[in-house]
Amino acid sequence: MAAAVVELYSEAKPTIGPTIENGFYYDFDDLSITKGDLAKIEEKMRELLKRWAEFTKKEVSAEEASEHFKNNPYKLELINELAKENQKITFYTSGEFTDLCRGGHAENPSKEIAKDSWKLSTVAGAYWRGDEKNKQLTRIYGIAFHTKKALEEYEALMKESEKRDHRKLGKELGLFTFDDDVGPGLPLWLPKGAILIEELEKLAKETENRAGYERVRTPHIAKESMYLRSGHLPYYEDTMFPPMEYEGEKYYLKAMNCPHHHKIYAASGHSYRDLPVRLAEYGTVYRHEKSGELFGLMRVRMLSMNDAHIYCSEDQFADEFRAVNDMYLYYFKLFGIEKYQMRFSTHGPKKLGEKYVDEPALWKKTEDMVRQVLIESKIPYVEVPNEAAFYGPKIDVEVWSAIGREFTLATNQVDFAVARRFGLVYTAASGEEETPLIIHRAPLGTHERFIGFLIEHYAGAFPLWLSPVQAVVLPVSEKHREAAKTALAELRSAGIRAELSDATESLGKRMREVKLKKAPYWLVIGEKDVAAAAATFESRDRGPLGQVSIPEISKTLSTEITARG
Amino acid sequence: MAAAVVELYSEAKPTIGPTIENGFYYDFDDLSITKGDLAKIEEKMRELLKRWAEFTKKEVSAEEASEHFKNNPYKLELINELAKENQKITFYTSGEFTDLCRGGHAENPSKEIAKDSWKLSTVAGAYWRGDEKNKQLTRIYGIAFHTKKALEEYEALMKESEKRDHRKLGKELGLFTFDDDVGPGLPLWLPKGAILIEELEKLAKETENRAGYERVRTPHIAKESMYLRSGHLPYYEDTMFPPMEYEGEKYYLKAMNCPHHHKIYAASGHSYRDLPVRLAEYGTVYRHEKSGELFGLMRVRMLSMNDAHIYCSEDQFADEFRAVNDMYLYYFKLFGIEKYQMRFSTHGPKKLGEKYVDEPALWKKTEDMVRQVLIESKIPYVEVPNEAAFYGPKIDVEVWSAIGREFTLATNQVDFAVARRFGLVYTAASGEEETPLIIHRAPLGTHERFIGFLIEHYAGAFPLWLSPVQAVVLPVSEKHREAAKTALAELRSAGIRAELSDATESLGKRMREVKLKKAPYWLVIGEKDVAAAAATFESRDRGPLGQVSIPEISKTLSTEITARG
Repeated sequence: MAAAVVELYSEAKPTIGPTIENGFYYDFDDLSITKGDLAKIEEKMRELLKRWAEFTKKEVSAEEASEHFKNNPYKLELINELAKENQKITFYTSGEFTDLCRGGHAENPSKEIAKDSWKLSTVAGAYWRGDEKNKQLTRIYGIAFHTKKALEEYEALMKESEKRDHRKLGKELGLFTFDDDVGPGLPLWLPKGAILIEELEKLAKETENRAGYERVRTPHIAKESMYLRSGHLPYYEDTMFPPMEYEGEKYYLKAMNCPHHHKIYAASGHSYRDLPVRLAEYGTVYRHEKSGELFGLMRVRMLSMNDAHIYCSEDQFADEFRAVNDMYLYYFKLFGIEKYQMRFSTHGPKKLGEKYVDEPALWKKTEDMVRQVLIESKIPYVEVPNEAAFYGPKIDVEVWSAIGREFTLATNQVDFAVARRFGLVYTAASGEEETPLIIHRAPLGTHERFIGFLIEHYAGAFPLWLSPVQAVVLPVSEKHREAAKTALAELRSAGIRAELSDATESLGKRMREVKLKKAPYWLVIGEKDVAAAAATFESRDRGPLGQVSIPEISKTLSTEITARG
Repeated sequence: MAAAVVELYSEAKPTIGPTIENGFYYDFDDLSITKGDLAKIEEKMRELLKRWAEFTKKEVSAEEASEHFKNNPYKLELINELAKENQKITFYTSGEFTDLCRGGHAENPSKEIAKDSWKLSTVAGAYWRGDEKNKQLTRIYGIAFHTKKALEEYEALMKESEKRDHRKLGKELGLFTFDDDVGPGLPLWLPKGAILIEELEKLAKETENRAGYERVRTPHIAKESMYLRSGHLPYYEDTMFPPMEYEGEKYYLKAMNCPHHHKIYAASGHSYRDLPVRLAEYGTVYRHEKSGELFGLMRVRMLSMNDAHIYCSEDQFADEFRAVNDMYLYYFKLFGIEKYQMRFSTHGPKKLGEKYVDEPALWKKTEDMVRQVLIESKIPYVEVPNEAAFYGPKIDVEVWSAIGREFTLATNQVDFAVARRFGLVYTAASGEEETPLIIHRAPLGTHERFIGFLIEHYAGAFPLWLSPVQAVVLPVSEKHREAAKTALAELRSAGIRAELSDATESLGKRMREVKLKKAPYWLVIGEKDVAAAAATFESRDRGPLGQVSIPEISKTLSTEITARG
């Protein structure tokens, strides 16, 4: 692309151009183009590609390199740096184009790169070396794949994910909003979004109740001493909101629920007979994210977390850990998540006592236990060394949405270190005091990210049980309003979230609105329906269902809601 | 009392001794006594009382007064202050005792004060003028009533309320705890306490859902600009936690939910047809309370509030306000609260534009509307001038617990000022933009205070639906353990919070424990019960219920739970 650009725009100065996921970009100075110019550049690229049969590598001295790029201050800056660091300087040439480059190219571009498996996608401004104090350059993005088919699939995915963008749908469906006076990264959940939250919490509470969890409630703040004890301070300070100076103490907004739960464990005595103790809470935590990295519900500063901590003996660990994984699998099935993977992060032995608690034997033992459970459960997983939490091995749960985009939703951690810092113990059968192992887990992650994921996953067309509006009643005309209101009242008294679409506009227009808002069911009530105490019933997913009596509709919906079908 | 003390302890120096609710106290220097000495003082008081037939008042000069009290530096300090402020100095004398006093006495103590309608209750340390930099004095407390009967009733109430002390019962029943690393006034809700919270939230959500409320969720923080807009800053700053300085902005932990709710109202357009909009949230707010004023769950710094804001037109106001009052009455009935009163606080015209928004016409109109509804609803109320909120008239809801102690639980406020500050509007039928009235209401107050109240009100013996443990299953011996576990599983699968009391101790001891923990029901399973697949069933409130089959027990409990009987 750079060769094509300099052939077409001789003033343009290439600077840096790396590969990125699914493609590449290149930044140019002295280049003024718009998206409309990309076709011309693509054409020139195809022309060059035909002639580029190889890349020739040449190692050059700093002087030689500087001489070649004497009119390009950006390349000169890079050459100077390489020289200072005593690194090799290499040029790669193909056709008449030579660039400063570390290498890693196609052997024979003409043969290896299909003329239609790539595209230039967009033009954007970018600061030299990402620093806004530097000059703004022109960046051209491209996407590139091995085959035309792969490119087309990617483009279709992007188009679909744009349609499913959680920020766009969140606005259209009235789920959440942001406000300048509240602050960036701090979502306000509108009534329809709060219904999603309430339903998810109901689901999690029921599921966890069945699984023997107990619920607790803790404050959103704690004194500095809490986080010094837990070890989060000073290591984690950058991720926390700054403290409030209050009555001569520093109070922190909590960035994690674990220390509060540990205090609850510590508040009463425990015998081996009481274990495992499973403490769960919908705890909202606050974390610092750079302004530039905030993104809709995906990167926020407020995290409403379905959090729990399991305190167990070593003997109980495998069963507890397996039960947590089973809960993940239950949720995956419920939400139709077909592709998932657990990313198992272990410690790095070289960083013991630095990034990781210095307990080599405990690291080995817990990592072995986790690996064993993963293998036995046949859950797909990858093992990643040197990415564990400071207190133990960690699992990140990666799931793929219905359109194949990947999300890291939840985390599942083993903790063999912090219990001791809090003096947490239980009396073993032997009468001795022992330290419990702790599992940190949050299968539904945070409301913010999980709902963001669900919006894309379902394209806003939530399953009935989760839908903010479950059914819409549409009288054909003002004449049928009373019958519609009676139907509405009947559905509502059965606990169904039904809404009335008053006959202030044409039926056609109102039907389009219902479909736009992705209501799972609607009931049209006209002359013959009034007479039959029924409605013309239609499903978003199953199409027209004919004339059905209101009690039957109510029963159908209630059954489907209860089953979370 | 002071006369008796100086007769018995000639060195003792009386300082200040006011009347307080239900009695009085007096602080002395150079007096070293214990509670055991109070009987002797009481005896001397009864002896003096017989002879005290009057109080003689005498106005004296500062010199005269100082001469009289020349050996008492405390009285001298008071005399000096009175002189400086040009206030009259008066002595009151009865028998041989003269004190510096403003007056307000019995005409004839011997006749008017019964010898057995009062008591000295306790001895405590107290700093001169409440300042810990001053010398510590000895304080003697007394309680005093018009009749012996009133005294006895008060003593019985105190004894009962001590037994019902929410801090004591909260500990015994494992409901909540406090922790030094978290901070004072910040309760941690243990699993059994969290059940109370979950049940109350379920009740409120069901009730509010039926009443047409919509739920929302909002962050616990907001930028300074939010509270400048709402008017809470700077007026309310002392009550708020100090700000966090973050990214060049000040963020405050929220001390009220209203501004966040206003932002949600503002996030979408509203027509008169959508009104009233009723936004509800279990929002946790944080408020500053002085360390010395913190008291169990009654005075805390974290307030989990069942909050809602109703946005309505003037026409709708009376109906909405009445519906809110009806919801209060519904709750009072459900919780067996028989005595209650609404304290209706109006503005003070002299403080318009200072303590109160300067809108005399709106004050009159809204106060008239509120008064009208109160009168029509026949709810007992008292009107208190000059205690309104800055944005409108306010109702504080006072209730009396089962033992007759008063609690201010909730508040219900009208707001005609803040909507304008947030630019909140709706399109009226005329097409004009109008400003809605706002009702702030929280019928169950905060979890902290309401649960504190309920603990005393029920003496910890919560009704079945609210009980953290609803039934306890007790096998008579190890032999009956399996049958007990089967019964336990059956109750639990019906959603009943049942626990097993294992036969590790004698049945008698376990029964005492069950009664101490105030479980509403228990099932004893012995030989003949195993054979009959039944249990010997007993109710905390209704006594023994004989041998009943497990399915029948399960049904009885489920019905009572659903009815919140």
